[in-house]
Amino acid sequence: MTPIFFLFAFLLSTINSHVAARDFCVADLRSVETSVGYPCKLPNTVTVDDFIFSNFTVGTPNQFNFSVTLAIVDNFPALNGLGFSMARIELEEGAIVPMHTHADATEVVVAGSGPGKYTTGFISSDNMVYIKTLVEGDIMVIPKGLLHFGFNAGEGKASGMAVFSSEKPSTQLLNVALFGNTLDSTIVEKTTFLDAEQVKKLKALFKGSG
Amino acid sequence: MTPIFFLFAFLLSTINSHVAARDFCVADLRSVETSVGYPCKLPNTVTVDDFIFSNFTVGTPNQFNFSVTLAIVDNFPALNGLGFSMARIELEEGAIVPMHTHADATEVVVAGSGPGKYTTGFISSDNMVYIKTLVEGDIMVIPKGLLHFGFNAGEGKASGMAVFSSEKPSTQLLNVALFGNTLDSTIVEKTTFLDAEQVKKLKALFKGSG
Amino acid sequence: MTPIFFLFAFLLSTINSHVAARDFCVADLRSVETSVGYPCKLPNTVTVDDFIFSNFTVGTPNQFNFSVTLAIVDNFPALNGLGFSMARIELEEGAIVPMHTHADATEVVVAGSGPGKYTTGFISSDNMVYIKTLVEGDIMVIPKGLLHFGFNAGEGKASGMAVFSSEKPSTQLLNVALFGNTLDSTIVEKTTFLDAEQVKKLKALFKGSG
Amino acid sequence: MTPIFFLFAFLLSTINSHVAARDFCVADLRSVETSVGYPCKLPNTVTVDDFIFSNFTVGTPNQFNFSVTLAIVDNFPALNGLGFSMARIELEEGAIVPMHTHADATEVVVAGSGPGKYTTGFISSDNMVYIKTLVEGDIMVIPKGLLHFGFNAGEGKASGMAVFSSEKPSTQLLNVALFGNTLDSTIVEKTTFLDAEQVKKLKALFKGSG
Amino acid sequence: MTPIFFLFAFLLSTINSHVAARDFCVADLRSVETSVGYPCKLPNTVTVDDFIFSNFTVGTPNQFNFSVTLAIVDNFPALNGLGFSMARIELEEGAIVPMHTHADATEVVVAGSGPGKYTTGFISSDNMVYIKTLVEGDIMVIPKGLLHFGFNAGEGKASGMAVFSSEKPSTQLLNVALFGNTLDSTIVEKTTFLDAEQVKKLKALFKGSG
Amino acid sequence: MTPIFFLFAFLLSTINSHVAARDFCVADLRSVETSVGYPCKLPNTVTVDDFIFSNFTVGTPNQFNFSVTLAIVDNFPALNGLGFSMARIELEEGAIVPMHTHADATEVVVAGSGPGKYTTGFISSDNMVYIKTLVEGDIMVIPKGLLHFGFNAGEGKASGMAVFSSEKPSTQLLNVALFGNTLDSTIVEKTTFLDAEQVKKLKALFKGSG
Repeated sequence: MTPIFFLFAFLLSTINSHVAARDFCVADLRSVETSVGYPCKLPNTVTVDDFIFSNFTVGTPNQFNFSVTLAIVDNFPALNGLGFSMARIELEEGAIVPMHTHADATEVVVAGSGPGKYTTGFISSDNMVYIKTLVEGDIMVIPKGLLHFGFNAGEGKASGMAVFSSEKPSTQLLNVALFGNTLDSTIVEKTTFLDAEQVKKLKALFKGSG
Repeated sequence: MTPIFFLFAFLLSTINSHVAARDFCVADLRSVETSVGYPCKLPNTVTVDDFIFSNFTVGTPNQFNFSVTLAIVDNFPALNGLGFSMARIELEEGAIVPMHTHADATEVVVAGSGPGKYTTGFISSDNMVYIKTLVEGDIMVIPKGLLHFGFNAGEGKASGMAVFSSEKPSTQLLNVALFGNTLDSTIVEKTTFLDAEQVKKLKALFKGSG
Repeated sequence: MTPIFFLFAFLLSTINSHVAARDFCVADLRSVETSVGYPCKLPNTVTVDDFIFSNFTVGTPNQFNFSVTLAIVDNFPALNGLGFSMARIELEEGAIVPMHTHADATEVVVAGSGPGKYTTGFISSDNMVYIKTLVEGDIMVIPKGLLHFGFNAGEGKASGMAVFSSEKPSTQLLNVALFGNTLDSTIVEKTTFLDAEQVKKLKALFKGSG
Repeated sequence: MTPIFFLFAFLLSTINSHVAARDFCVADLRSVETSVGYPCKLPNTVTVDDFIFSNFTVGTPNQFNFSVTLAIVDNFPALNGLGFSMARIELEEGAIVPMHTHADATEVVVAGSGPGKYTTGFISSDNMVYIKTLVEGDIMVIPKGLLHFGFNAGEGKASGMAVFSSEKPSTQLLNVALFGNTLDSTIVEKTTFLDAEQVKKLKALFKGSG
Repeated sequence: MTPIFFLFAFLLSTINSHVAARDFCVADLRSVETSVGYPCKLPNTVTVDDFIFSNFTVGTPNQFNFSVTLAIVDNFPALNGLGFSMARIELEEGAIVPMHTHADATEVVVAGSGPGKYTTGFISSDNMVYIKTLVEGDIMVIPKGLLHFGFNAGEGKASGMAVFSSEKPSTQLLNVALFGNTLDSTIVEKTTFLDAEQVKKLKALFKGSG
Repeated sequence: MTPIFFLFAFLLSTINSHVAARDFCVADLRSVETSVGYPCKLPNTVTVDDFIFSNFTVGTPNQFNFSVTLAIVDNFPALNGLGFSMARIELEEGAIVPMHTHADATEVVVAGSGPGKYTTGFISSDNMVYIKTLVEGDIMVIPKGLLHFGFNAGEGKASGMAVFSSEKPSTQLLNVALFGNTLDSTIVEKTTFLDAEQVKKLKALFKGSG
């Protein structure tokens, strides 16, 4: 049978020598990114642990009383090139997820166990409001790049998972973008129609200057 | 202020008249598919419910003692064009997920609560075995097109969720493909090196003819 | 020479019979869209005029004292499948382009003749402010999905052209999204941290209800 | 065993009901094209013959003493969405393949049996000449969109196969494009620097008017 | 309020640490290209000036009496991954843009101010001639890979801008490709049907050898 | 005429300085891969030989009495980014191509000269069997990721060529994946329903352990 063994050795060496790099392309995070992701780790350095992400569990709540645990290409290199990533979300009672956008990532929210109620909504670019209070077993799609928000509309905790149509989604929090940086107050005022006092108040709250 | 109202009416009519179709493209399932998905439902017929999938819950176990509940473009049209879909999985004690492949879909398994233990593994095309017993909070990536399998290695139920890198993943179950159709037994034997009796036995089990 | 004539007739019929549909795919706007654009007009119905867009000229200024003339797939079907579109912009003295985003479209602004000065800026998702006063011969790239704005910082008119990395860019105007629809005021307040009075005032200004 | 049979019936109905359309997307040629190909034939109407193309054999030589037999999506619908197509080529002794381009298709030439010698060359856009006389067992890549040509440099027939990086490659024959249509002679002269007489002579040869 | 400040610091560090690389991917021109562009400059080295291209102005006319000023990824790295680039064109009276192709780039010409008249045309691969004399406010689409040309058909200068569906378009000038290199004259003659004398004359004009 | 020469020198330097990298992207195999292929060789180091692959000829038969000669990106770098590759196949009388899959690569088989008869078949994920005995001039498409097989059904040799919709196709041989590695026998048994003895026999044959 040795011949057959050699045959396969031969077949594998000709057909499959580099093929792991095409079965998968685990990100080499020490390398520089391209517009389509990271270069691949050398196949012969990849082990089963490269395909495992641990502690995708509930994190500690933030000031808004919700926690987000992300599994994206930067902490889970096996997602490189896949075009999606995930987040585990838990909303304490009264939690608010402020108005924000994900540039170029659609978000799919999978509602988990309650008793809280995860309410989420988005506004389309033709200015329709799409809002829903989700219960366990509901999934909601939030199209990419649109303003959206959420809050816990019930009593007790609400939990969920999100899938993003990007292995490295970005988040732009409206208040931080408007009030948490050096953008000149007069520019904020004239491009948002907000009153000077309102801008001043939120600049203070979000530690913006200018 | 009416002028401003009209202004925006004007802006929206020029800029956004069709834009909903670009914010999202909810599948029109009555229409024929292309190699990149379904045509879009007319934006003005889309409501919030098009973005909602309900009953993404645990299904009834099959003969292998596991249940799969799918949310794919064919039952959740809002996934059209997104390039991923989801499944909720529950493994009873002793459950076995037979050897299978998903042509062109990577699977990402998110292990849920136990007490059972979800063991899953795949074989790469350079013939390495990648196997892991997952606990809650573990995620495992199973690269597209490769043979993989799973089973409940613990006591009590194991649960999980899967994300597929296709909005319409297909599944090829090895035993059904080899033994559950009209493929001639002599062809099965010579292309798999299985003994005639073994083939005959499994043809009977999986209701194949030929 | 007739034989050669026939030869080419033959060659063209075998090689090129449908090929116009691959040289170009002019949108059939009466047909339904897919997530990658419109089906193609039948090649034999396409004429030179299908490749021409006229009146890409300065439009009438709106309440903000700027005009936008768009050439996108919906009014210029030859852009179908190209992945970009264009706009001609003119800012009167004092013009303001309110804070907005283009979901999934990068915008490249080409500054035209003054004497006005086109100032534009964007905020990245890691909260840096990128702002520049452009002069004729300057081009600025505004990455997709990010909040950005503009105004005429000089005396007299400012003009420019924009190229979008989408044949059908959408625009979400912040104020219209927050205050110009049915989104409940209390939700606006808690997800934006704006004061109730500010919200009420802008709801009135932008004709929102709720 | 019936239960297991039902199980698979169940599994297949939930998992695979439409899946054939994702295993493959055979073109429905009666339907209109999109910029990414044809819509799919309904899976339940697809048979093994849809995956078969017959008579990919040597055709009758044309006036240039070569024959081309094409297998492209328009006569082999199973190539839909694959992004490549094929041609069988035979060059009689003395055959010439005139200067031409394939817009957006790279051509890969696989030299077949002689005794003739297939010489082919292309000119890159930085104006380098890449030319080679191929023998059986040689493959040459001709990058997309570039001017290229071929001829039989040996004695006896030369044969080959070509693969194009498009399921529907187009061909622009230089002489036909310049001299075989209604393009005004004075325009040809000033944009090609050819003498009026040369243009007149070739307009006559290629049956152009104007 | 410090807690909220820390909250955002935390949020940004978890969610956005690398995100700039996904908001944009400014080309690192010192790095080697891939088939999809350049690797990204490290986000923390990117400034507003990386998004600005200056001097997109009229250049000095060449021997054909036209000037081309290019803004492509190689001199404007912010275009990396965008899939388009731009050119500013000015045609002196009598200017001729010789017959040429752009491999794999569609060109969209935006006619600027006259008084000259920009006439441009292309030939499709099914050998139709599409020609038009443009006036200010006209846009014309020239499909990728096809032979096209232009000239100033009026009195006085004509100006325009072009957008290419490639961040790095290439140009193949017909005369340079045929007569400005080492391609053997006898090969040019037999693959173009041009007379030996015509070839000799143009080889001399365009400094070709062979 | 020197001025014109300089003109083109100028034109080429401005327009085409790097363009070769966009005409083509020959793989630099010493560099690390990305999920979309290899970085490009520096254009100025590319010669005509980079576009040539030699010895695409019949190889020596293996234990199954067939030979495979591959032309893929790893031994023919000019295929980088093209998305397809090729193989030359020869089946001796009685040859068997064992059951296998190509993850994410469709295979197109072009039947060559006999007298042998190349029979090939695949099983779709909705469990239909598609099988055909090919004769010279037949082409068959085998959709990506599906189990397929072949054998020589005639007398004498059968030959063919294959095109894969991947520049680096991988192959998973069913028997090697199940029996030629360290996968535990009890796992093989319960996930394939094969008898322990059958597994033991094939583990021995394919040199698997565990």
